Amino acid sequence: MSSTPSSLYQKIQQKEADQTPFFSLEFFPPRTKPGAYNLFAKFDKIQQTGEPLFIDITWGAGGGDPSSDEYTSSLSVASIAVDYCGLPTMLHLTCIGSTKQQIREILDKARKEGIRNILALRGDAPPGTTYDPATLELPYATDLVKFIREEYGDYFGICVAGYPNQHPNSPSAQQDLFYLKQKVDAGADFIITQLFFESSTFIEYVNQCREIGITCPILAGILPIQSYASIRHLMKLSQLCPPDEIITELERMKDDDEMIRAYGVQLATKMCQEIIESKVCFGFHFYTLNREVAVREILQNLNMWNPNGTAAKGLPWQTSANERRAKEAIRPIFWSTRPKSYLMRTNHWDEFPNGRWGDSSSPAFGNLSELYLFRSAGFNKAQKRKIWGETLSSVDDVATVFCNYILGKISRLPWSEDSTVAAETKKIEFQLIDLNRNGIFTTNSQPAVNGLPSTDPVHGWGEAGGYVYQKAYLEFFISPTAFSQLVEVLAEFPFISYHALNRAGESRTNEKEKSVNAVTWGVYPGKEIIQPTVVDPESFPIWKDEAFELWRTEWRDLYEAESMSYNIIENIYQNYYLVNMVDNDYVRGNIFAPFDKLGITNPTQGLVPNN
Amino acid sequence: MSSTPSSLYQKIQQKEADQTPFFSLEFFPPRTKPGAYNLFAKFDKIQQTGEPLFIDITWGAGGGDPSSDEYTSSLSVASIAVDYCGLPTMLHLTCIGSTKQQIREILDKARKEGIRNILALRGDAPPGTTYDPATLELPYATDLVKFIREEYGDYFGICVAGYPNQHPNSPSAQQDLFYLKQKVDAGADFIITQLFFESSTFIEYVNQCREIGITCPILAGILPIQSYASIRHLMKLSQLCPPDEIITELERMKDDDEMIRAYGVQLATKMCQEIIESKVCFGFHFYTLNREVAVREILQNLNMWNPNGTAAKGLPWQTSANERRAKEAIRPIFWSTRPKSYLMRTNHWDEFPNGRWGDSSSPAFGNLSELYLFRSAGFNKAQKRKIWGETLSSVDDVATVFCNYILGKISRLPWSEDSTVAAETKKIEFQLIDLNRNGIFTTNSQPAVNGLPSTDPVHGWGEAGGYVYQKAYLEFFISPTAFSQLVEVLAEFPFISYHALNRAGESRTNEKEKSVNAVTWGVYPGKEIIQPTVVDPESFPIWKDEAFELWRTEWRDLYEAESMSYNIIENIYQNYYLVNMVDNDYVRGNIFAPFDKLGITNPTQGLVPNN
Repeated sequence: MSSTPSSLYQKIQQKEADQTPFFSLEFFPPRTKPGAYNLFAKFDKIQQTGEPLFIDITWGAGGGDPSSDEYTSSLSVASIAVDYCGLPTMLHLTCIGSTKQQIREILDKARKEGIRNILALRGDAPPGTTYDPATLELPYATDLVKFIREEYGDYFGICVAGYPNQHPNSPSAQQDLFYLKQKVDAGADFIITQLFFESSTFIEYVNQCREIGITCPILAGILPIQSYASIRHLMKLSQLCPPDEIITELERMKDDDEMIRAYGVQLATKMCQEIIESKVCFGFHFYTLNREVAVREILQNLNMWNPNGTAAKGLPWQTSANERRAKEAIRPIFWSTRPKSYLMRTNHWDEFPNGRWGDSSSPAFGNLSELYLFRSAGFNKAQKRKIWGETLSSVDDVATVFCNYILGKISRLPWSEDSTVAAETKKIEFQLIDLNRNGIFTTNSQPAVNGLPSTDPVHGWGEAGGYVYQKAYLEFFISPTAFSQLVEVLAEFPFISYHALNRAGESRTNEKEKSVNAVTWGVYPGKEIIQPTVVDPESFPIWKDEAFELWRTEWRDLYEAESMSYNIIENIYQNYYLVNMVDNDYVRGNIFAPFDKLGITNPTQGLVPNN
Repeated sequence: MSSTPSSLYQKIQQKEADQTPFFSLEFFPPRTKPGAYNLFAKFDKIQQTGEPLFIDITWGAGGGDPSSDEYTSSLSVASIAVDYCGLPTMLHLTCIGSTKQQIREILDKARKEGIRNILALRGDAPPGTTYDPATLELPYATDLVKFIREEYGDYFGICVAGYPNQHPNSPSAQQDLFYLKQKVDAGADFIITQLFFESSTFIEYVNQCREIGITCPILAGILPIQSYASIRHLMKLSQLCPPDEIITELERMKDDDEMIRAYGVQLATKMCQEIIESKVCFGFHFYTLNREVAVREILQNLNMWNPNGTAAKGLPWQTSANERRAKEAIRPIFWSTRPKSYLMRTNHWDEFPNGRWGDSSSPAFGNLSELYLFRSAGFNKAQKRKIWGETLSSVDDVATVFCNYILGKISRLPWSEDSTVAAETKKIEFQLIDLNRNGIFTTNSQPAVNGLPSTDPVHGWGEAGGYVYQKAYLEFFISPTAFSQLVEVLAEFPFISYHALNRAGESRTNEKEKSVNAVTWGVYPGKEIIQPTVVDPESFPIWKDEAFELWRTEWRDLYEAESMSYNIIENIYQNYYLVNMVDNDYVRGNIFAPFDKLGITNPTQGLVPNN
């Protein structure tokens, strides 16, 4: 486990020093599993478009134990955001009513999950109960901050809450500031404020903080008013009241939620602009209430929403925010449509020597488990049958499903976690349709790329000024008969290497030795060559097991046992080969040429844009 | 130290199984240091053209202790052949008169030097002396073989000698074969025979060996008759007599050595052809007597001389045959014209994790020592003054020397071990001449290459079917004034990165972070990307010390202290910068553009062939 200090604080300091506005997004844990899927899908979207400095998960609002292993717990949501959605994440933690040992157990677990940032809060006693501070091990947030620093040193970044309108329990604004100073002195790195309704409230508050010697960054907590009902609820909860003119406006529009939302966006935008102009702070923490549309509008108004998200990243696949994986630089191509499954199955790897699995001759993957299968689609059986067929009358119906996925008519296949087909797949769409129509079911592919600029909108990745390359790749299921024909033709294409395995593990390949084949690489100024995606013969059998299992658990089991639909899928599962195929000549090759020869693809439309 | 068995035996077995003729070359250690240089130069040439399966060094013929650290000792010659010339090497070892402890010390040393193959011989008692076998610890070759196997297991490949005409001391041919069987049973891997004059002698001998159960490979020892005197000497030494018709022929030509040499070549060619046809053996061991011209002719006659040598190798630089360096895959570009110096300065590295130095942040290089400087040119002072100037009257005279080297008019610079300018340098010859004529003294360079076939005769390396790439590289000494002008212009070329150091270590660079820059890489079917040459900021200061030291020790010290010639070089040594420069845009860039801008190079002739 790394013991370098959490880097979030440094990033915030840098942004403040550069006077570059930045933002973070707060979410609460969902109440249900489907709610959890939706939230994770939101995280994915935020990772792809947005670019928050971090996200923040509240403690236990969804009900249930916030530190449990359920997907709906605060800790799980934060951990999944870090591990699988690639988002730097802060986790709230309240101490009131908890023993040191209980808090220690939660923090140990958070550390184990790669969470590096904690928002330390006192929390409230459950409604109808009170605590006597004298009887508590950790009665105040200050005590929690101290405890974290004592027990975990610099491992966690610590944030504390500031109250521009004074905490409802504080005897005075002065006393409230004093408590805040205490929390900072105890070891907090930065402050996020409670919501407020006028920028002047916040600006004044920051000035007061500076006056009493609080020097750390202070992020403005922004709540966009989203509906009349929600603002009434919040006023009650926070015991805060907007100024009269806002109340008047809201009352005027109270029957028009859309108008209120627009007003809320306008109000928040104005506050943020005024704060940026004041230069007291450049960080904005948005209370999203799990609805990020209004927040996105505000950020777009402020020119702070990056449509490329953190996707303007160093590698072509989505990196994890877990620091344990910081050195990860190479992945097998097989899981490229199932990155979360890959992350899950390699979650126990503590080190990534050479940027990859430790011993490539025996990469240890986690077992196929309900866990990853369960997460693979996020659709229930009825939804799956709707898109993959209520009944199947022949293997042609299966072909239609694959074609529909490539054409964007359906949003999911068992082998894809993402609901969108990769942009580069569009470039070889016709050929893929031809293959699938002919019973060659493609699960993964990439066209050849011969030195496009690293800023290319479709194929580019990594920093500007570089050149990116790809070897054409195809992965598909194919019947034994069709495969035999293909193998015969492939003898004429020495630059195309292939490896096929059926469910039982029978292997056919034209590769003379087992070696790792780089299929995506990039050349950058002043850098070593980066080769983030490889075809790795040692992990192919592991992917093969997963890929076949998905036929069975995701598709076959939608139908009654021994029904025709069931048997069609079962037959594929039992008999087909899974083939990976690389055209090693990324300059002059054409991976579809063998299929042209077989009359499956059409050479006149099949010119691959090799650039 | 590796404990895998020596691979030579497997290679021989494979060749025999494939019925592919192969050869090895035997040399004796030189008597003098200049003789040693000549021999090492021969080894280099053999490595570049030829492709022997191995070379073989006799034990102590040059006089002196064959296991000493002198360049002229058998052990040193074998070790240098392995380490610096990249040739798999076998070392003779005789046991007569030596104690087990003495032999153990020699074998320990050989193992430490990376020698993996021993030709185990009894040897002869010094002239005029006799040994009583009963008093000796290792009286016979069999005892030596046994001893090596007992003490070193499989570490050494062991060869023994066979006598097709029976050993002069053996009582009978039958007894002689019995002794050979004993040696093989004691653990020898293969046999090399004494010379013979008719193929039938050898073929019959092999058949006899097979009859008594000797199954290991038997290589035919071939001595091409090179002169009348030498054959007379050899007949005396080996107590062998050629058949009458050969004697008659030789007597007839005895005053025409050239005719005898041609006759010898013809005779040996015929013997080899007959043996290959007989299929009893496919390996030929040539007694070169350190003159390999006749042997080359024989091998050319047999179509066994590979003009590309082992140079058809996996990496663009000459690899070492020392198994300790088997995993070495990356070197700094700085030493590319001084590969032996690099090998020497990294000779103590036992491991090459990631294919390179262990910890790139502190690569430990051997000290600058007399050793490498001494070996740097192999020329004496008079020879050096002849090519680098008897006197220098201005820095222009230095420029002329550099230009003459590029034009091939002189064969050596202090910074080049090889006497030939690399073929690819020819492609940028005009620009390099312009630079040097203007006092920018280039020591190393490569043009950009954007995806040429790996079989390209100039730039290609590695197996067929791949594509090779290079970033343009320039390394030069430049005066502080000229460097300041250059730096100003370079601001307009963001894709050109540079790093300059003067003797005192003052550093100027436009690189924001210290990172390793790959400047030569290749993409091959079914392989990871190979990047064998890099510009490494950590080893540049180490190279800088060596590069500056060569001005002083190789060039300045040719002249009387404080003479004008001396002071001209001293001034360069004291004040100039050594600059490395990479054009990161290998697709569209032109590393000479900044010099065009300064009016130094001529843009109309300066179009770099980027392919």
